[in-house]
Amino acid sequence: MNPGNEQALAERVVAAMMAKDAFSRRMGMEVVDVRPRAATVRMTVTGDMLNGFGVCHGGVTFALADSALAFASNTHGTMTMSIENSITYPKGIREGDVLIAAAEEESASNRLAFYKVTVSREAGEIVALFRGTVYKTNTPFFPDPE
Amino acid sequence: MNPGNEQALAERVVAAMMAKDAFSRRMGMEVVDVRPRAATVRMTVTGDMLNGFGVCHGGVTFALADSALAFASNTHGTMTMSIENSITYPKGIREGDVLIAAAEEESASNRLAFYKVTVSREAGEIVALFRGTVYKTNTPFFPDPE
Amino acid sequence: MNPGNEQALAERVVAAMMAKDAFSRRMGMEVVDVRPRAATVRMTVTGDMLNGFGVCHGGVTFALADSALAFASNTHGTMTMSIENSITYPKGIREGDVLIAAAEEESASNRLAFYKVTVSREAGEIVALFRGTVYKTNTPFFPDPE
Amino acid sequence: MNPGNEQALAERVVAAMMAKDAFSRRMGMEVVDVRPRAATVRMTVTGDMLNGFGVCHGGVTFALADSALAFASNTHGTMTMSIENSITYPKGIREGDVLIAAAEEESASNRLAFYKVTVSREAGEIVALFRGTVYKTNTPFFPDPE
Repeated sequence: MNPGNEQALAERVVAAMMAKDAFSRRMGMEVVDVRPRAATVRMTVTGDMLNGFGVCHGGVTFALADSALAFASNTHGTMTMSIENSITYPKGIREGDVLIAAAEEESASNRLAFYKVTVSREAGEIVALFRGTVYKTNTPFFPDPE
Repeated sequence: MNPGNEQALAERVVAAMMAKDAFSRRMGMEVVDVRPRAATVRMTVTGDMLNGFGVCHGGVTFALADSALAFASNTHGTMTMSIENSITYPKGIREGDVLIAAAEEESASNRLAFYKVTVSREAGEIVALFRGTVYKTNTPFFPDPE
Repeated sequence: MNPGNEQALAERVVAAMMAKDAFSRRMGMEVVDVRPRAATVRMTVTGDMLNGFGVCHGGVTFALADSALAFASNTHGTMTMSIENSITYPKGIREGDVLIAAAEEESASNRLAFYKVTVSREAGEIVALFRGTVYKTNTPFFPDPE
Repeated sequence: MNPGNEQALAERVVAAMMAKDAFSRRMGMEVVDVRPRAATVRMTVTGDMLNGFGVCHGGVTFALADSALAFASNTHGTMTMSIENSITYPKGIREGDVLIAAAEEESASNRLAFYKVTVSREAGEIVALFRGTVYKTNTPFFPDPE
């Protein structure tokens, strides 16, 4: 596939995923950049995303990173399945923070791909580091028309 | 502390956490069991918790497990901070599934505690395995009254 | 397969693996128990397994757990490949410690299996917690004779 | 501390660690680069580092990455303790491969630091991705002389 087609496919896949992704939309996530094997998603932390300590619930930060991973890892047009994820939290996240999750592929084998997602505040400070291992199926995202 | 007081403290901490935990309540989580260093939380997967593939968003499953971990790891009455979490997904999760997340301490050192959280469907099938490492601060959850 | 045959196959696989496993033998590992989807391995920490702080090198503890995982996850007679591992260290390990690594399957899907390995001192104290996700191939460990 | 002193301290710490690190020396590891919060270590995979499938034992690759992490995370002159590590294996490793493990800090908080270690063959192909979370103590690596 030529680079222009790769980019067009990546954008088409992510637009289709986001249109059906009820949870990401409910959380106010917004895709701000898509490239082959990469995606950047933005979300603002609202009061109903806080936990019992009054800071951002870990599940919220994880969800943002996980959406970025899902978008990035499906950009090549065949479906992937998440196998394992891990996350660390270098800094606390508060209400009103605008978070940017940038996912990119670090390495891949025939059947697996390994992604990192860096979650930062808009000003650039890293607040979470997320890793994801995915399994690459052969199932095309858009089946060929007859 | 005697066992009865430990149990009472555990229940009091989790009730106080849940009362202030906006995200867990918004997700419909319900604490079904609390013991010292253990907690079980239940949640039903609703249509607005699905991702672009029409299955439960990874962030939703993670959030449930993470809440169970937070409750379990604070039961001893001093605050803990999450350092690192990982999750795997043995089975797909669908709309309508009732999920049970059971958190328990596996091991601990002076400053760290290591938890596992098993997420199952009500019938008992494991759908996710979650691990959490937490840092144990000296900050009491309920500061002594003067 | 009946249970007796499963057990016999498990033992035959692990014996064949250990016979060819140069590193596990060099480290003095000894298989002390094998069951279908489970294996226990013992090793004594010697002076040449210590790191720059005079305690057991993390790679040594990891290697012991990883061997236990490899044995356990191949017991069903088809080859598995390691995808991802994580390890935590609740307690320090010193020269002369006799370590026991017990691997068992926690859950599995069609293609993946999820193992935990608990590493303890002989007296029972947990010193490391290890997780492993493996991919289950269709390749028989012992190809059928013609 | 000025940059020149930081670099000198980093080199002095790693030299002292390596001199006492029995396992890293036994495995033939060689420190090839040190900078503040970064270290690169090289090792050749020998026949006695293979597992029962005739490829490099996971514990060997992990040990190399773990040594690189230990060196990198102690370069600032106060001792760190490993909390949690994870590793994935994009490519198989064979006897004779010369492996390069490059550790660098990705982020840090007051008490924690988060490192990534990329393990590559000399020609540059990534064969393993390793993460490490460490706890930063206040204990100086070289106590002040009286």
